[in-house]
Amino acid sequence: MTRWILSVLCLSCLGMRLYAQQSVSVKSPGGLIAVTVQNTPTGEVVYQVRYKNKPVLAPSRLGFTLSKPRQSLTRFGIKAVDSSRADGVWKPVWGEVAQIRNQYNHLVLSLVDKAGSAIQVNVHFRVFDDGIGFRYEFPLQAALKHFVVADELTQFRLTADHQTFWMPGDYDSNEYLYNRTRLSQVDALTAAAREKDTALKSVIGPNAVQTPLLFKTADGLYISLYEAALVNYPVMHLQLDKKMLTLTAQLTPDAVGNKAYLQTPAVTPWRTLIVSDKATDLLASKLILNLNEPSTIADPSWIKPQKFVGMWWEMHVGKATWEKAGGKHGANTQNVKKYIDFAAKYGFDGVLVEGWNEGWEDWFGNWKEEVFDFVTPYSDYNLDSLTAYAQRNGVRLIMHHETSGSVTNYERRMDAAFQFMVDKGINTVKTGYVGRIIPRGEHHDSQWMVNHYVRVAQKAAQYKIMVDSHESAHPTGLHRTYPNWMASEAARGSEFNNAPTLGIPPSHTTILPFTRLLGGPMDFTPGLFRFALNQFEPSRTTRVRSTLAKQLALYVTVYSPFQMAADLPENYEKHLDAFQFIRDVPVDWDDTKILAAEPGEYIIIARKTKGSDSWYVGAITNEVGRDFDISLDFLEAGKSYEAVLYQDGVGADWEKNPESYTIEKKTVTTQTKLPLRLAKGGGCAIQLIRR
Amino acid sequence: MTRWILSVLCLSCLGMRLYAQQSVSVKSPGGLIAVTVQNTPTGEVVYQVRYKNKPVLAPSRLGFTLSKPRQSLTRFGIKAVDSSRADGVWKPVWGEVAQIRNQYNHLVLSLVDKAGSAIQVNVHFRVFDDGIGFRYEFPLQAALKHFVVADELTQFRLTADHQTFWMPGDYDSNEYLYNRTRLSQVDALTAAAREKDTALKSVIGPNAVQTPLLFKTADGLYISLYEAALVNYPVMHLQLDKKMLTLTAQLTPDAVGNKAYLQTPAVTPWRTLIVSDKATDLLASKLILNLNEPSTIADPSWIKPQKFVGMWWEMHVGKATWEKAGGKHGANTQNVKKYIDFAAKYGFDGVLVEGWNEGWEDWFGNWKEEVFDFVTPYSDYNLDSLTAYAQRNGVRLIMHHETSGSVTNYERRMDAAFQFMVDKGINTVKTGYVGRIIPRGEHHDSQWMVNHYVRVAQKAAQYKIMVDSHESAHPTGLHRTYPNWMASEAARGSEFNNAPTLGIPPSHTTILPFTRLLGGPMDFTPGLFRFALNQFEPSRTTRVRSTLAKQLALYVTVYSPFQMAADLPENYEKHLDAFQFIRDVPVDWDDTKILAAEPGEYIIIARKTKGSDSWYVGAITNEVGRDFDISLDFLEAGKSYEAVLYQDGVGADWEKNPESYTIEKKTVTTQTKLPLRLAKGGGCAIQLIRR
Repeated sequence: MTRWILSVLCLSCLGMRLYAQQSVSVKSPGGLIAVTVQNTPTGEVVYQVRYKNKPVLAPSRLGFTLSKPRQSLTRFGIKAVDSSRADGVWKPVWGEVAQIRNQYNHLVLSLVDKAGSAIQVNVHFRVFDDGIGFRYEFPLQAALKHFVVADELTQFRLTADHQTFWMPGDYDSNEYLYNRTRLSQVDALTAAAREKDTALKSVIGPNAVQTPLLFKTADGLYISLYEAALVNYPVMHLQLDKKMLTLTAQLTPDAVGNKAYLQTPAVTPWRTLIVSDKATDLLASKLILNLNEPSTIADPSWIKPQKFVGMWWEMHVGKATWEKAGGKHGANTQNVKKYIDFAAKYGFDGVLVEGWNEGWEDWFGNWKEEVFDFVTPYSDYNLDSLTAYAQRNGVRLIMHHETSGSVTNYERRMDAAFQFMVDKGINTVKTGYVGRIIPRGEHHDSQWMVNHYVRVAQKAAQYKIMVDSHESAHPTGLHRTYPNWMASEAARGSEFNNAPTLGIPPSHTTILPFTRLLGGPMDFTPGLFRFALNQFEPSRTTRVRSTLAKQLALYVTVYSPFQMAADLPENYEKHLDAFQFIRDVPVDWDDTKILAAEPGEYIIIARKTKGSDSWYVGAITNEVGRDFDISLDFLEAGKSYEAVLYQDGVGADWEKNPESYTIEKKTVTTQTKLPLRLAKGGGCAIQLIRR
Repeated sequence: MTRWILSVLCLSCLGMRLYAQQSVSVKSPGGLIAVTVQNTPTGEVVYQVRYKNKPVLAPSRLGFTLSKPRQSLTRFGIKAVDSSRADGVWKPVWGEVAQIRNQYNHLVLSLVDKAGSAIQVNVHFRVFDDGIGFRYEFPLQAALKHFVVADELTQFRLTADHQTFWMPGDYDSNEYLYNRTRLSQVDALTAAAREKDTALKSVIGPNAVQTPLLFKTADGLYISLYEAALVNYPVMHLQLDKKMLTLTAQLTPDAVGNKAYLQTPAVTPWRTLIVSDKATDLLASKLILNLNEPSTIADPSWIKPQKFVGMWWEMHVGKATWEKAGGKHGANTQNVKKYIDFAAKYGFDGVLVEGWNEGWEDWFGNWKEEVFDFVTPYSDYNLDSLTAYAQRNGVRLIMHHETSGSVTNYERRMDAAFQFMVDKGINTVKTGYVGRIIPRGEHHDSQWMVNHYVRVAQKAAQYKIMVDSHESAHPTGLHRTYPNWMASEAARGSEFNNAPTLGIPPSHTTILPFTRLLGGPMDFTPGLFRFALNQFEPSRTTRVRSTLAKQLALYVTVYSPFQMAADLPENYEKHLDAFQFIRDVPVDWDDTKILAAEPGEYIIIARKTKGSDSWYVGAITNEVGRDFDISLDFLEAGKSYEAVLYQDGVGADWEKNPESYTIEKKTVTTQTKLPLRLAKGGGCAIQLIRR
């Protein structure tokens, strides 16, 4: 009990019944954010949020419907209120910064159902200066043991028709482009219909959107609505009531329509709002990570951020195939050897090999349970000789486990598959979930799958294996708890550059950091140096909507400890000077400064290399060319740095002249104002080495 | 091509189009049974069956509806007809007889969809003298690769309103009593509503019944309708059209309502009819086994039929509990030691121990995924000392894996669980599937679960483990293919003697051999010697509806290579003279003679011990007392035998005096006519030792 929550203290003295119509407030440590919870005359419990006294959320309902026991939990009495403060610093195993401060004020309301069930639900609010998290706790109690969530009724009532960055709500895919409209103009079906290149869609409805959801308000606030610590619970989508400007939790159902099977004591994920009047602060927020549990891995010494190349993009652009049948099999011994040579020559840690194992002739689209066994290489792929060759060259192969969505099959075989990796000296796996999920009727975002992804991280850790998951549910900061879960895809990644319909428009990468990336690292696979993708199939019209310099900048702006140099060796060898940046750029950092940012427009980020004095800067823009003067005041005072600038060249333009770039060296100091010119769809990457 | 199928020969010459409205017939090797297939003017393909020229089935439709590709397969052209004959003898690893003749005539019709899809379906008929089996084959073809079965349309059109032995169709339980009505009087909902002691019911509808289904016709035929070799396909239930006396296949759906996911080449299970004018011949039929594939286990030397006692019935009657909490934990070291001592003293092979592992405090009824881990004994159960103690005493523990229906959990842990057994020297597992299935939405009888049961048998074989599965789908002769799958429950077993509502009426065991047992051995757990089940809880009103002598006879009439002496040691020790029969009776046989049988009334079976000259006879009756004179003409001529007769005593009666029995010795020969008196609900067990 502390001073700042005096109102609670007083109420506590008066006992439970007097809480009716009363309200409880809690402010963030620095006073920027305030949450007020009220018990209305009808028994509803609503919360509201203000930032610097501006309204962020209007009074919004809390509650549930349970299907077992059949019970509506919407009217409560407040049995007790408790509060505390927390402040501390923790160090991630890897990340954007070396240490993270976790400071918040904590409010816990013990609610008791008024409808007679005597069920108790506690609601925990953590109020930070950069936002809030709240979650429900169902404590151990006589009135509730096992229960089934039919619906979570949590609301988020906006106070105006904000500009909104949204994706259609979809239980199986988060690989959409973001749409940018007023909240009331959301039209999920039309947006989803435009997306013709997504392998599997389960669109929820016209007014359903995904989280993370981003708002920009007329009075200059940036608000991210998301969730943290998604464990043993389905992904939260949102249903929009356009008249009321109210979003309500829409949990992903299981095969029979239930949402979550829980047993007391149980907690939901945190529902989060990151709020700031500075877009840069929103990007710098560590709120999601702070709401996750500390690492479960006592000795993380085997977990290593890494850069890699691999047998992957050449399948996308039609040079090779995953499947052996057809005569264009990419993952043959000779071809993979070339990638190992390339990785060794240019200092990459790993070589990803997709299409290495039997089954690709018949893997997709048939909801087939037994596809891959994860331990049987194609006959033209000599895994043992390649792992030995890689080891001699200081490189490791990266394993690929495409499940084709058949997760029951994968779970049966996971131990054998991981042991196989250990036997071969491979310690990183890229998992894939392309296709409809088996168990049939489950979704990529349902509770069963959420549990599966965590099981993979846990089991992989037992085998000291690092995981990069593709087509998994959106990340919610669990890489704090499972730091071997290095990255996931869970968004439209660079591979969509080769998608015929919409591709990756230049704005996409300026939205990702404000949305998907708030949850965790993304295996975006940047670094494409060839822009017209007709290298092997001249009729192909797909193209990379970016300049070359922007491709470099993405290594800084799209944070991941697991970064691919995605293009073909032959494409890199035509631009070895530019390629040098990809060779140099680190994947682990001691510090990060968001220099400038506006969602959908531009982002400039500086990062300090882990254990070194060098800095790297990435600047990207959308379709609009821009000029910036960036201050280098993050550099150490009194020192000089050699800046190597990889910039858009004269006339560079993502559409007309993407390959134009210049490389320039300058000496700079903390006082330097560095002018940057970003071309349309362009970017700039800078290396800053302390002399 | 052979003489007996002359009509086919002729048609073959004429080419495909001429088959329209034509018919093809095939008779069984001995001519008893004839199948005729016709292509109707509308393109339907119908089959009919006759036995000794009496109609068994009227012309009945073949066909499918596919949901992917969306296609109705009901109108066909006949592209080709082929026929062959087969005759051979094979030896089961264990069984009722030492060798089995497999003699049939084979007809294959190659059908091609007339609706334009060009899909080809072959229908295979095997016509035996004791019945028929037919199945669909979807050969490898350009027109069909992966496909999803929406419905199988196979019909079985009866020719009159037969007396029928039926159970309500249910996707999750086969633990019903059989009902005996005219076919048109089936009322599945009323029958199911009477059953109040079944843990989980998923009743299909008012007119749905399970297979195996038994008919007795007015003209004296016994007809069993069932399926064989249920692999990668759901269980077939049947929908009844009462007006048309027509049954149509009702396959068990999966979580999204589909029935089967198949890929060419694929086959369905065999749809079977066993037909005879002698009830005894129906019981002797090996048709189901003959339609299954040969054993997949090259060296079956580790597979041993066995008799066992165990920690089980004392939980059912309230002496002990599965769970440790509550202070009545049965599976504690001391208690299990007593069972080992008892097994060793009386010559049993195994001791089943249920409730040995952590999780029973919270195992049932909550659709909970993580219940048991199958490797963590309760702290009061010293497994290592007990396995050592058992080994010193020439006994083995039998493992229990109750999954609580959470099959995804079991599949993840199966390797570890089986390895744990191997490490502990345990080579038999009783599996259990009590509760709603996880993957949620699947049923005990759906394709996914059918595949699971087979996976368990296959994986267990890799670890040289024998399996006894409870709450699994009805058996269809797969113990031929997987002879380590010793037995299953899959019907109302002896544990229902303790069920408050209906229990096990005396007729039940006279119906089982005509229905459920045709598919394979049942772990019925006979041998109850105490009839009022109030030994530990005086208020308990449940009772065993049998005489003691009948309990002995069940060891012969309910065939299984895996037989329990189910009652408590203390109950056996009060009747050691009668218990001697259970000690003596074998679980593997060289020969079997069905001496007398009438479904729902009585059964008398003689079996010859494997590798010995001794015979055993079991005779049981329903609620009606009966006298028989049985001929011992199966004994070796010229030899004399000592007969030990365990018979109902004077005044014995399942209701009033179940414990009355006599044990009598006689010298008999092949010429002896042995008078048997079976009390109401009684029986007789006879041991015949050659002098």
